[in-house]
Amino acid sequence: MPAISFLECSRCAKHVSADTPQTVCPACAGALYVRYDSDSLKQTAVRPDGNATQSMWRYASVLPEVEPVTLGEGWTPMLHSRRHENLWIKEEAANPTGTFKARGLAMAVTMAKHYGLEKLAAPSAGNAAGALAAYAAAAGIEAHIFMPRDVPMANYLEGVAYGAHVTLVDGLISDCARMVAERKDKEGWFDISTLKEPFRVEGKKTMGYELVEQLGWTYPDAVFYPTGGGVGLIGMWKAFEEMEQLGWVAPGRRPKMIAVQASGCAPVARAYREGASVSKMFENAATFAAGLRVPKPYGDSIILDIVRKSEGTVIDIPDDRILESLLDWSRNEGLLLCPEGATATAAYDQLIADGFLTPKDRVVIFNTGAGLKYVDTLAEAMHLTRTPEKEYPERVPVGGIITPQ
Amino acid sequence: MPAISFLECSRCAKHVSADTPQTVCPACAGALYVRYDSDSLKQTAVRPDGNATQSMWRYASVLPEVEPVTLGEGWTPMLHSRRHENLWIKEEAANPTGTFKARGLAMAVTMAKHYGLEKLAAPSAGNAAGALAAYAAAAGIEAHIFMPRDVPMANYLEGVAYGAHVTLVDGLISDCARMVAERKDKEGWFDISTLKEPFRVEGKKTMGYELVEQLGWTYPDAVFYPTGGGVGLIGMWKAFEEMEQLGWVAPGRRPKMIAVQASGCAPVARAYREGASVSKMFENAATFAAGLRVPKPYGDSIILDIVRKSEGTVIDIPDDRILESLLDWSRNEGLLLCPEGATATAAYDQLIADGFLTPKDRVVIFNTGAGLKYVDTLAEAMHLTRTPEKEYPERVPVGGIITPQ
Ligand SMILES: Cc1ncc(COP(=O)(O)O)c(C=O)c1O
Ligand SMILES: Cc1ncc(COP(=O)(O)O)c(C=O)c1O
Ligand SMILES: [Zn+2]
Ligand SMILES: [Zn+2]
Repeated sequence: MPAISFLECSRCAKHVSADTPQTVCPACAGALYVRYDSDSLKQTAVRPDGNATQSMWRYASVLPEVEPVTLGEGWTPMLHSRRHENLWIKEEAANPTGTFKARGLAMAVTMAKHYGLEKLAAPSAGNAAGALAAYAAAAGIEAHIFMPRDVPMANYLEGVAYGAHVTLVDGLISDCARMVAERKDKEGWFDISTLKEPFRVEGKKTMGYELVEQLGWTYPDAVFYPTGGGVGLIGMWKAFEEMEQLGWVAPGRRPKMIAVQASGCAPVARAYREGASVSKMFENAATFAAGLRVPKPYGDSIILDIVRKSEGTVIDIPDDRILESLLDWSRNEGLLLCPEGATATAAYDQLIADGFLTPKDRVVIFNTGAGLKYVDTLAEAMHLTRTPEKEYPERVPVGGIITPQ
Repeated sequence: MPAISFLECSRCAKHVSADTPQTVCPACAGALYVRYDSDSLKQTAVRPDGNATQSMWRYASVLPEVEPVTLGEGWTPMLHSRRHENLWIKEEAANPTGTFKARGLAMAVTMAKHYGLEKLAAPSAGNAAGALAAYAAAAGIEAHIFMPRDVPMANYLEGVAYGAHVTLVDGLISDCARMVAERKDKEGWFDISTLKEPFRVEGKKTMGYELVEQLGWTYPDAVFYPTGGGVGLIGMWKAFEEMEQLGWVAPGRRPKMIAVQASGCAPVARAYREGASVSKMFENAATFAAGLRVPKPYGDSIILDIVRKSEGTVIDIPDDRILESLLDWSRNEGLLLCPEGATATAAYDQLIADGFLTPKDRVVIFNTGAGLKYVDTLAEAMHLTRTPEKEYPERVPVGGIITPQ
């Protein structure tokens, strides 16, 4: 594992030392990236093979030099679609706590422990809070998590079960963020919000390494990523850059990055269509894809920049089409995607229909979490109850979307 | 992949052909085991290494010769406990559908497809039904699943979402089994119940291969297995026998097999204590470890035989101690076990306290599924609600079990 050379501001390129915990750029409040000495990295970095650890720590040689707090995160299956010859699902449901959030929080909590931090706080759409609670429990660190009151019950339960201090907020992640910001100094919390410290991106970059490794160290033509705060997309792009520098992948055409949002909360899609370089607060955000309810992502400009550089696009999908795609994939492929993942599969269908992509394009779609984390949300959307009169339904009619066969 | 030589009755040793689908022994109704030609297997079987597929199909050379219906099951993490130096958790939550049931159903549905079966039926405590529904969807086969009405909501939801025909039954798995038995001939269903066809055991045996491989091709001193129907335990024992024949592991002291039950449904524990070789129906079975609500397992005599041969034991744990252990592991290790898995961790504590095992013994505990599949059950047990008056609880008091700190 390499030593960190410095942290670099994504906006003004200022260098900051990683010897003490850092938040955002002290000059311009931009998100900070972890940088290593590229010459020594070329000497020491080892492209993993079959003998490497079967978790995200197989990429330890391109991650900060620390003792990992691990629950077995990463190195998730890459599943080939049964219907689309050139389509793969990156199945992040296999992670601890059931979502890809485990990667970012494993890395961030690892570093927090390394720095000796004792109290971490984070606003969350739900899944990041669950992951923070789990890794904090594993590390013996206090976690203070703030999430909307109407998160899936799984998120509240895991927070409490892992022993975190949970606050349910009558509002959105942006309201939660405000509460953390207001209280953190008084309480002595370190704020581990999306992009407000450098290590969640660093952990999530392993998704980029993995997908390239699992495709035999080649790029796909496009990557679909359900985008809330956008950390995964930002992390993957960083991974591509690093892999090219290291010669782990041929520097050629990087994949088109497709950021997918729910129409009920689509600030980045709107900014993209308007040709803007930042987003505006999306008022009255509402979607059952809870992880995508981020009305004003902190890293909006970075996301938009990456999408444009990659010649990708940003697209948004309404809830009824998300549910339709979710049921399509469960019934026809045996995969119960999370609503966020189904947003991406619906987007795939649309971009094929639009001709933006063709069925020949090699595509990776991120299913960022387990459908099983959304049992209450999905049961409601599908009008499912276990009352006696529903004895042996041939097909349960689903909100008028799936017609009984 | 080897051809199947024959199916062998576990009770009377009769041989049955595997050329057509088989259920139980036609002579004595005993469960059937898959047997290969051991001489040719010695030639062809390959002990997997780092280059093997990262799913249970890494053991394809000791599984039937067929095209797998796979969703990426198996090759799950082996997690080292943070508190017990010689204790590992085999984390089956990482499987598709969130439980180890995926292994048995992947294999059974694979074979059903191979045989050209079109309609499968199964009674289930819940998780097997979910897995059957998923693999049937992947294979394009009809699934008819019967489960208690009060299963965790996740089980009902996944059945419906995967497009299975779901019947909720006011009763237990034994009542569900009766309904399948009564209707299967008329409906043309193939009955894929626990131990009533040979391939669920064959799939679950991969747990035995994996745990030995992950411990560097050595045996642990003991294996804890939450036991309902007992298929996993039976499958692992078969794996140990095969591995010894193949020379993949030194034939020495096999692990003590510890079958763990919930006190609310402990037919095998009772039979074990009474020195009996079969169990009696456990009346009024009730436990929140839903997968352990099997009041009279079909393979009870096989389970008891294996436990005794291995010098293991059978132990049962009351629900309050299961919940206590579940919260202990989530708060102190960052792992949200399923109630069945927490039954096993509670049993570990007890057998250490009793002196049956010492902390020096190398132990593997199966966490057979994701705690997240039990959100409704656990929320109820923990008295969790999301009402406003619960704003920022320092520690939510949990049913009088965990005292607020
Ligand atoms: C399941 C799921 N998918 C996607 C996202 C969006 O992730 P990001 O913030 O990296 O864009 C979230 C965030 O909460 C999530 O929980
Ligand atoms: C989570 C879980 N653990 C354990 C069991 C018991 O499995 P077996 O029937 O192999 O004993 C079940 C069965 O439903 C289960 O769902
Ligand atoms: Zn800056
Ligand atoms: Zn027989």
